[in-house]
Amino acid sequence: MNQRIGVNSIAFEKPPVILAAASIVGEKEGQGPLGQFFDHVETDLKFGMNTWEEAESKMQSMAAKKVLKKAGMKDDQLDYIFAGDLLGQIIATTFGLMQMERPVFGLYGACSTMGESLMLASMAAAGGFAHYAMGITSSHFASAEKQFRFPLPYGNQRPLSATWTVVGSGAVIVTDEDMKGKGIARVTAATPGRIVDFGVKDSLNMGACMAPAACDTICQHMLDFNRQPEDYDAIITGDLGSVGQKILFDLTEEQGYDIRKQHLDCGMLIYDPKTQDTHAGGSGCGCSAVTLAAYILPKIKRKEWKRVLFIPTGALLSTVSFNEGQSVPGIAHALVLETTES
Amino acid sequence: MNQRIGVNSIAFEKPPVILAAASIVGEKEGQGPLGQFFDHVETDLKFGMNTWEEAESKMQSMAAKKVLKKAGMKDDQLDYIFAGDLLGQIIATTFGLMQMERPVFGLYGACSTMGESLMLASMAAAGGFAHYAMGITSSHFASAEKQFRFPLPYGNQRPLSATWTVVGSGAVIVTDEDMKGKGIARVTAATPGRIVDFGVKDSLNMGACMAPAACDTICQHMLDFNRQPEDYDAIITGDLGSVGQKILFDLTEEQGYDIRKQHLDCGMLIYDPKTQDTHAGGSGCGCSAVTLAAYILPKIKRKEWKRVLFIPTGALLSTVSFNEGQSVPGIAHALVLETTES
Repeated sequence: MNQRIGVNSIAFEKPPVILAAASIVGEKEGQGPLGQFFDHVETDLKFGMNTWEEAESKMQSMAAKKVLKKAGMKDDQLDYIFAGDLLGQIIATTFGLMQMERPVFGLYGACSTMGESLMLASMAAAGGFAHYAMGITSSHFASAEKQFRFPLPYGNQRPLSATWTVVGSGAVIVTDEDMKGKGIARVTAATPGRIVDFGVKDSLNMGACMAPAACDTICQHMLDFNRQPEDYDAIITGDLGSVGQKILFDLTEEQGYDIRKQHLDCGMLIYDPKTQDTHAGGSGCGCSAVTLAAYILPKIKRKEWKRVLFIPTGALLSTVSFNEGQSVPGIAHALVLETTES
Repeated sequence: MNQRIGVNSIAFEKPPVILAAASIVGEKEGQGPLGQFFDHVETDLKFGMNTWEEAESKMQSMAAKKVLKKAGMKDDQLDYIFAGDLLGQIIATTFGLMQMERPVFGLYGACSTMGESLMLASMAAAGGFAHYAMGITSSHFASAEKQFRFPLPYGNQRPLSATWTVVGSGAVIVTDEDMKGKGIARVTAATPGRIVDFGVKDSLNMGACMAPAACDTICQHMLDFNRQPEDYDAIITGDLGSVGQKILFDLTEEQGYDIRKQHLDCGMLIYDPKTQDTHAGGSGCGCSAVTLAAYILPKIKRKEWKRVLFIPTGALLSTVSFNEGQSVPGIAHALVLETTES
């Protein structure tokens, strides 16, 4: 049987295997340090569509098709899709995935959605509910700026604490089949996150909003499994950026965990801050999703990393709550990814 | 082991048991035909808060507290919460549940959220991931009108095909514990839904948008389990209303299923169309959630119904997609609820 561990965690008795992963990104991401690793870099920010939202949907459908192709599967072999995005009522997902005609569990976890979708897909596979489940998410700089901040033509200035929403969609397929050592990585454990609110009200400093949630999930994970940061080759958050990383180091240290040696952040990996003018780093659901697919998973497959703690982070913000004076709480969902040899 | 059945469905080997259910509603719902069954009828539409969104959050936190109390449980006994609402970035859920300090899986399934949350909570329990999992959702007439249609002070006229968003929050707790015949009902099977788009573009005729999805899920369910409508004491959709019901009857009949004898719709049960001026019926995540908690589950507990097919329905609409000329696709998630004696 699968096991509840500690206060918040899960250990998979027979860990589901990540069979395939795919990443579709925009031009800016293609020009960044991870550019060569993505499956497809699209130079047309509109992806051939008429609106930013349609562009994001198109990108998500491209990622879904790509991951199925890499897995050598057809749409109808897929049992369930776990998917979401940043937009109100997750319309990028709705219009991006509806042509697949497979059951969809719609998710909203802000930028933590890759963690939530991969976790639920893994639970579906490990629980005997699915042979093949997809986790997928996306974000688009232009649709996100329109949704959360200012219309692009305003040309507003961005403070140095701001992050840049990644144009990207990442998808993975997990399976309960015995892959006999093949496949990319095993999902061995999970620690879903609580909503954590430190009262931060600055929507242009998302790192500060999310760092307390990342700290809560990481420390709870270590406690639940009685592990230390040294038990991981890498501890990788989603999109804290350089500002959030500093806060995370301080907060985890207060809890007795020094994660400086192991810590990486997808938002700090995806852009070059010196040449790309992205300030604190990348963000958005797509940030951790495409970094997982293009950079983290290949390293695990090549056995450069044997065990990774992957913690996509989300800022639970809407313009409505923000304009009504509410704070921006955070959430972070952690997964343990290991090499396929046990 | 739990089983994948047919094309889209799940059968639970050891069906999780619904331990407790709670419903909190507004004054109009309290005056309707189900009024006497709700746990709490709040006469202050703002629930003592300053904004409609805060009111909805407060209502959701009240439902969570109530269901825990009815189950005789404390917050920290709850493993996971599966929750969502209609608002952009599900802020009613975020601000309503964060004080509970338990892991939250944020969902967006439009008005089908009670189906999605109860299904995932049941999968978590049956898969060995949770001893106690909560499914919860809410909607509020005023926050929904503000989000999707017109500000209330406009006093706009509503066509007769329009439904009225229910002010209500419903919550259930499921468990994998052996309840020895106690508890309210067993969740024995599930058929998660596909996104179905018939190209309907009328956001004031949600019944027409959702009926094709309800038909797709119901017919797929019957096929997957090789059952007929007669195998159910009731087949209950979420919020099709009187307009959507007629379309559903036509569509299912085309597929060879006559569900007229078994069919009920939560949206048609919750208001009295003659005296309450709600036009086609009730809608919103809260509609199926509070009808489940206050009306459907008690009937199963009393063994008036032995097996029910419960199909919350959702219209995947946002103002952004709507204003960009997109259609309103639907989704419907079906659950089989049975008496606790097998």
